[in-house]
Amino acid sequence: MRIKTMQTEQRIIDAAYESFWRSGFTRTNVDSIAKRAKLTKRTIYSYFRSKDDLLAAVLLHYAKLAGQRIQHIGDRMPADPVGMIDSFFGQLAGWANATPRWSGSGFTRLVVELADMPGHPARAIARSHKVKMEVWLAERLAKARIKRAQERAREVMLLMEGSMALMLIHGDRSYIDAAARAAKHLIKQK
Amino acid sequence: MRIKTMQTEQRIIDAAYESFWRSGFTRTNVDSIAKRAKLTKRTIYSYFRSKDDLLAAVLLHYAKLAGQRIQHIGDRMPADPVGMIDSFFGQLAGWANATPRWSGSGFTRLVVELADMPGHPARAIARSHKVKMEVWLAERLAKARIKRAQERAREVMLLMEGSMALMLIHGDRSYIDAAARAAKHLIKQK
Repeated sequence: MRIKTMQTEQRIIDAAYESFWRSGFTRTNVDSIAKRAKLTKRTIYSYFRSKDDLLAAVLLHYAKLAGQRIQHIGDRMPADPVGMIDSFFGQLAGWANATPRWSGSGFTRLVVELADMPGHPARAIARSHKVKMEVWLAERLAKARIKRAQERAREVMLLMEGSMALMLIHGDRSYIDAAARAAKHLIKQK
Repeated sequence: MRIKTMQTEQRIIDAAYESFWRSGFTRTNVDSIAKRAKLTKRTIYSYFRSKDDLLAAVLLHYAKLAGQRIQHIGDRMPADPVGMIDSFFGQLAGWANATPRWSGSGFTRLVVELADMPGHPARAIARSHKVKMEVWLAERLAKARIKRAQERAREVMLLMEGSMALMLIHGDRSYIDAAARAAKHLIKQK
């Protein structure tokens, strides 16, 4: 692929990512993506046959970013279990605080938006990301010698998803603190 | 208001409720509501000026139903704290199992769909419902002599929201069992 072609493709993906993230998948149309990318609709359709195809490309891009974010979170985590939980939820709070109009996990949001379409290919990508995250958490907790690390990792996932939903609903970030406190209590189980 | 008028209005609200619940707010249009209600679009617009007005009416209806559901959940709850938690999450699982294409809390879903519109009136109604539920839980837990009932109620809310998100993502109802187990451990805190 020529460099110019690759650059244009990336520009479309970046614009679509930004649009989907801001307004959700359904409310984004190709017109608004074209406007954001400063390209014509015709150009966009020469790269992607449909909005669904574009969504697939955006999701692969987003999964890569999300993988990098997990890596980044892991790099900053201390080795002790309590420090680990504090760091995990602290970084979640930092992400929410640093992002204007933060709206939670893009994958969760997409699944909720496509709740009536269990077979949609986007949902498989979202599911796979959440599985990876839970497995990754279990490995970290096991390394920190937490017992039944898989069960504890699942509880941390429940609290993380819950805190994102309630932060979004109430606009109140203290839900993250409550989740961190609960997680620290739960990992002490024998 | 004449009885016939009231009946038609309720028929529109029921059809809109069903449509919003199935496909989300954004993907529902007045055409599909008209089709479901077996009425013309013209008739619908003679009752509601816009889709937003119709959403407001549906939300008031939904808040009433949700209030009744909380009442119903409470009526079946035993007085002891562990039984209370089991009953709470058991009824959540029962609701998910009994509902074809279950897609979690309608209020949470609406907030996620309108994530980029913090000022949307629908979000205030959703927020108010979640506050009521948290307060109601805290009262129940306090009655069962659970210490720091407000903090514990918030943890149960976090686990409930988290389990709904992860059940939807994974299509796996064991996330509710994990949430119930965690909640029972958390309410034992001194």
